[in-house]
Amino acid sequence: VLAAELAARLGAELWPSTAGDVELRQVGGLAEAEPHTLSFLANARYRRHLRGTRAGAVLLRPAERGACPPGVAALIHADPYTAFARAAALLHPQPPPTPGVDPAAYVHESAVVEGARVEAFAWVGPGAVVGPGTWLEAGAVVGPGARVGRDCRLMPHSVVAAGCALGDRVWLNPGAVVGGEGFGFAPGPAGHTKVPQLGGAIVEDDVEVGVHSAIDRATLPDQHTRVGAGARLDNFVQIGHGAEVGPNSLLVAYSGLAGSARIGANVVLAAKAAVMGHLELGEGVRVAAGSLVVRDAPAGATLAGSPAIDHARWLAQVAAAPELADRVRALERRLAELERRLPSPTDP
Amino acid sequence: VLAAELAARLGAELWPSTAGDVELRQVGGLAEAEPHTLSFLANARYRRHLRGTRAGAVLLRPAERGACPPGVAALIHADPYTAFARAAALLHPQPPPTPGVDPAAYVHESAVVEGARVEAFAWVGPGAVVGPGTWLEAGAVVGPGARVGRDCRLMPHSVVAAGCALGDRVWLNPGAVVGGEGFGFAPGPAGHTKVPQLGGAIVEDDVEVGVHSAIDRATLPDQHTRVGAGARLDNFVQIGHGAEVGPNSLLVAYSGLAGSARIGANVVLAAKAAVMGHLELGEGVRVAAGSLVVRDAPAGATLAGSPAIDHARWLAQVAAAPELADRVRALERRLAELERRLPSPTDP
Amino acid sequence: VLAAELAARLGAELWPSTAGDVELRQVGGLAEAEPHTLSFLANARYRRHLRGTRAGAVLLRPAERGACPPGVAALIHADPYTAFARAAALLHPQPPPTPGVDPAAYVHESAVVEGARVEAFAWVGPGAVVGPGTWLEAGAVVGPGARVGRDCRLMPHSVVAAGCALGDRVWLNPGAVVGGEGFGFAPGPAGHTKVPQLGGAIVEDDVEVGVHSAIDRATLPDQHTRVGAGARLDNFVQIGHGAEVGPNSLLVAYSGLAGSARIGANVVLAAKAAVMGHLELGEGVRVAAGSLVVRDAPAGATLAGSPAIDHARWLAQVAAAPELADRVRALERRLAELERRLPSPTDP
Repeated sequence: VLAAELAARLGAELWPSTAGDVELRQVGGLAEAEPHTLSFLANARYRRHLRGTRAGAVLLRPAERGACPPGVAALIHADPYTAFARAAALLHPQPPPTPGVDPAAYVHESAVVEGARVEAFAWVGPGAVVGPGTWLEAGAVVGPGARVGRDCRLMPHSVVAAGCALGDRVWLNPGAVVGGEGFGFAPGPAGHTKVPQLGGAIVEDDVEVGVHSAIDRATLPDQHTRVGAGARLDNFVQIGHGAEVGPNSLLVAYSGLAGSARIGANVVLAAKAAVMGHLELGEGVRVAAGSLVVRDAPAGATLAGSPAIDHARWLAQVAAAPELADRVRALERRLAELERRLPSPTDP
Repeated sequence: VLAAELAARLGAELWPSTAGDVELRQVGGLAEAEPHTLSFLANARYRRHLRGTRAGAVLLRPAERGACPPGVAALIHADPYTAFARAAALLHPQPPPTPGVDPAAYVHESAVVEGARVEAFAWVGPGAVVGPGTWLEAGAVVGPGARVGRDCRLMPHSVVAAGCALGDRVWLNPGAVVGGEGFGFAPGPAGHTKVPQLGGAIVEDDVEVGVHSAIDRATLPDQHTRVGAGARLDNFVQIGHGAEVGPNSLLVAYSGLAGSARIGANVVLAAKAAVMGHLELGEGVRVAAGSLVVRDAPAGATLAGSPAIDHARWLAQVAAAPELADRVRALERRLAELERRLPSPTDP
Repeated sequence: VLAAELAARLGAELWPSTAGDVELRQVGGLAEAEPHTLSFLANARYRRHLRGTRAGAVLLRPAERGACPPGVAALIHADPYTAFARAAALLHPQPPPTPGVDPAAYVHESAVVEGARVEAFAWVGPGAVVGPGTWLEAGAVVGPGARVGRDCRLMPHSVVAAGCALGDRVWLNPGAVVGGEGFGFAPGPAGHTKVPQLGGAIVEDDVEVGVHSAIDRATLPDQHTRVGAGARLDNFVQIGHGAEVGPNSLLVAYSGLAGSARIGANVVLAAKAAVMGHLELGEGVRVAAGSLVVRDAPAGATLAGSPAIDHARWLAQVAAAPELADRVRALERRLAELERRLPSPTDP
C-alpha cells in the first residue's frame, strides 16, 4: 500500500506531502523497522528509537511531527495507536477460515453448523447452533443447546457450555470458559448444600475473552451472566454467576467480579482488581491494580486500595506512609524533651 | 409440587396455612418470579423486591414473616438459602447421564469403565477406573492408573492425571486439573534441578472444583495432596504439592495453598487469599480477601492483611490509616507552637 | 542402589563410612521412610522427624551430621535438596515415551513428527515440527507452523499456538498455553480497536510451565515473547505480549508480567507478584509475594509492596504500622496535657 493511500484510509496527514509513493508492506517496531515498514510512536518510552528508525513511515501525534527524522514519512494522527491498529489489519489481513467440518470433529446430528470451520476434536452438542464464518479450533466445545454467532473464533479448548450464547465476532482464547458452574452453595456447619446453577451466560458481540478466563453461568433459571458488547477480558479474568459487565469495559489480567456484581459501560478494572458480590459500579468507573472493591461506586469514580477508597485519597496515604513512622518518632523525641523541661506539678 | 408438600419436605412452616395448594414449578428471583415460582429472600439487599413480587411462594426467615405481601405464600425457614438450594434440586432435577461410551472416546483396553457416560474425545488411560453414574464430558482425561468414583462429573477438558483419585460425587469444572506437576525444583545459581513429583493427589467425596483450578500432585512417593470431603473450590484455586485441605473448607476464587501447607476443616479462604508453604491453619480459620498468611494459625483464628494479622487488629489499622497522616500533621503544628513558646535553655 | 555408589554419584560424603552397603530403592519423607528409603532434611521445620526416622539413609547438611540417629546412614552434602532431586531422578527413572502416533491423533500431512509419542486427540497442524522423544498427551495442540523441540512433554490440553516455538526438554503442564492472543487493542470512547497480534512466542530449552500458565504472543511481526532457558513458571503465571523472562528466572503461582515487560536472568517473582507493562527488572531482582512493581529496578534489587518499594523499607513500614496509631494517640494525649499547662498567651 502506498503511504498516500494509507494516509487517506486512516484519516492521517502525510508529511512531507511528497512522501506519498513510499510503499508500505508491513507494520513493525521503530527499532526493527525496514524501509517498507509502517511503524508508530504512541508510548513516550520508545521515543529514543525514533531518530534512528529505518521505517518507511511512522504514525505520530501532531506534537511529534518535528521529531520525525529526514527521509521517513510521517503519518500525523491524533490517535496514532488506533490508526496503527487499523493499519495492521489492512497490511496483514487474516483470511477467514475455510468452511468445513473435519471428519474427526464431533457434531451432533441435531446441531446446526453451516458455513463454519470445525477442526478435528471440536465438539458440538445436540441442538447447538454455530454461525457462518465461525472457526472452532481443536478441542473447542459448544455444549448442548448453546448458540455461537457468526465470525467468531473459538481457540483450542475454549468452551461454551450448555445453553449459553455468544454473539457475533466473539473471540475466545484457548481455555476460555463460558458457562462454568458457579460457586453456588448454601454453607452449613455440617456441610454445604449445592445450589444448582440453572441460568445461562451471554457474551455479546465483539467481545474478546483472554486465555482461561471464566464466565460462570447464572444461578436462577431465565437469568444470565452477561458480558456487554465490545468488552475486553484479559487472561485469567473471572465473571461470577449472575454478574454483568457493561459494554466496552476492560478487565485486565486476574481481575474479576464475584457473583451478582454489576459494572457499567466503559469500566476499567486494572490487573488483579476484584469487585465483591452484589455490588454495582457505575459507568466509567476505574479501579487500580490489585484493589478490592467492597461497596457500590457511582459513575466516574476512580478507586484504589484494598479495601478500595477514592484514588486520590489512596495516593495521599501511600505517599505519606513511608515517612509517617519517621515523623512520629521525631514527635516523640521532641515531646519528651518538652515534658522533661516542664515537669508535671503532681510529679514528686 | 404443591406448597404444602414442599414445605413438609423442606421442614418449613407454611404461612398462611391455607396456601398449601399453590403449585410451584420452578425457582426464580423475586423480581422475575411468576405465579408458579418459588423465590427466596436471603440477602437483605434484595428486600426491596419482596413487596412487588409475583412469586407463588417465598422462602423467608421467621423475622421476615410480616414482610411477605398478601397473596404470596411464605415458607418460613431458619435458613432460607439452604432450603432454597434443596427446593431448586427438587424442582429442577438433573437427570443422570445415560451410560455409554461414545465411539469417538478413547478408553484403553485395560481401563475399567462401567455404567459411566463417556463423551467423544474423553480419554481414559491404561489401568484407570471410572465408577458408575460418572459423566466424562468432551476432552475429560483420566490418566493412567487414575481412579474416579461414582456419580462424578468431569466437565470438558478437566484432568485427573496419572495415579490420582477422585471419590464419589466429585464435580470438576471445565479445565480443572488434579495431579499437575508441582512447582518442584532445587534452586541453584547455575540452574535449577528438577525434583520429580512422585506422589499423587486425592480429592475426596462431594468436592466441587471450579473452572481451571489446579491441585498439584505430591512430591514424594506414597504421599498425596488431599482435598477433604465436601470442600468447595472456586475458579482459579491452587492447591500446591503435598498440601491438604480439610473437609468442608471453602476456597474462593484465586485463593490457594503453597506446597505442603495444611488447613483444617471448615476453613474459609476468601478470594485471592494465599497461604505460604508448610504452614498449618487450624479448623475453622477464616482468611480475608487478598490476605497473605505467613505463619501458622490456631483453630478459629480470623486473619486479614498482607502479611496477615488478626482480623480485628487489621480492621483497626485500616480504619486509622486514612486520618493518621492528618493527625500527625496536626501534632507537628501544635508541638512547634509549644516549642516556640518554651525555648530550650541551651538555645541562643 | 548401594549407599556408597549413590554417595559417589551425588558427590556426598557417606557417614559412617561403613554404611556403604545399605541398599536404597526409593526416596521418601523422614516420617514415612522405610529401611530402603533415602530421605533428606532441607527444611528445619521437619528436623523433629529426623530422630525417629526409619530411613536407610538421609541427605544432610554438614552441620546436621551429629543429629543423624544411630543406624541411619548420613549422606553429607552442602546442598541436600539438590542432591535429593538428583537422587530421586536416579532411583525413580521415568522411562521415555514409546514413539508412535495413536490412530486417533490428528497430524496434518505437512507436519513433521518423528520419534515422538502422540496420544489420541493430540492435534498437530500444517507445517508443524515435533522433535524426537517428545510426548504429546491427549488434547495437546501444536498449531500451524509451530515448532516443538526434542524430549518435550506437552501434558493434556497444553497448546503451542500457530508459529510459536518450544526448545528442547520443555515441559508444559495441563492447560499451559504458549501463544495466546495478547490483550491488544487501542482503547477508544466509542469502542476499542483490535490490534492484531502478529508476533510469536518462544520458550527456550529446559523451561517448565505450570498448569494453565499463559505466554501470549507478541504484537508485532518478527517480535517474540520469550521465556529464557531454565526458567520455571508455576501455575497461573502470565507472560504478556512481547514480554521477556531471563534465563533461570522463577515465577511463582499467579505472578506475571504485563505486555513488553522485561526481566533479567535469575529473577524471582514470588506468588501473585506483578510487573507492569514496559518495565525492565535487572538480573537477580527479587519481588515479594503480592507486590506490584511500577517502575524499573536495577540488578539485585529486592522489592516488596504495592506499589513496590525497597524490601527493607517496606519491612520497616509493615513493622511500624500496627503500633503507629497507638503511638499517635499517646502523643495526642501527652501534648494536650502540656498545652493545658502552658496556655497560649493569646487565650482568654
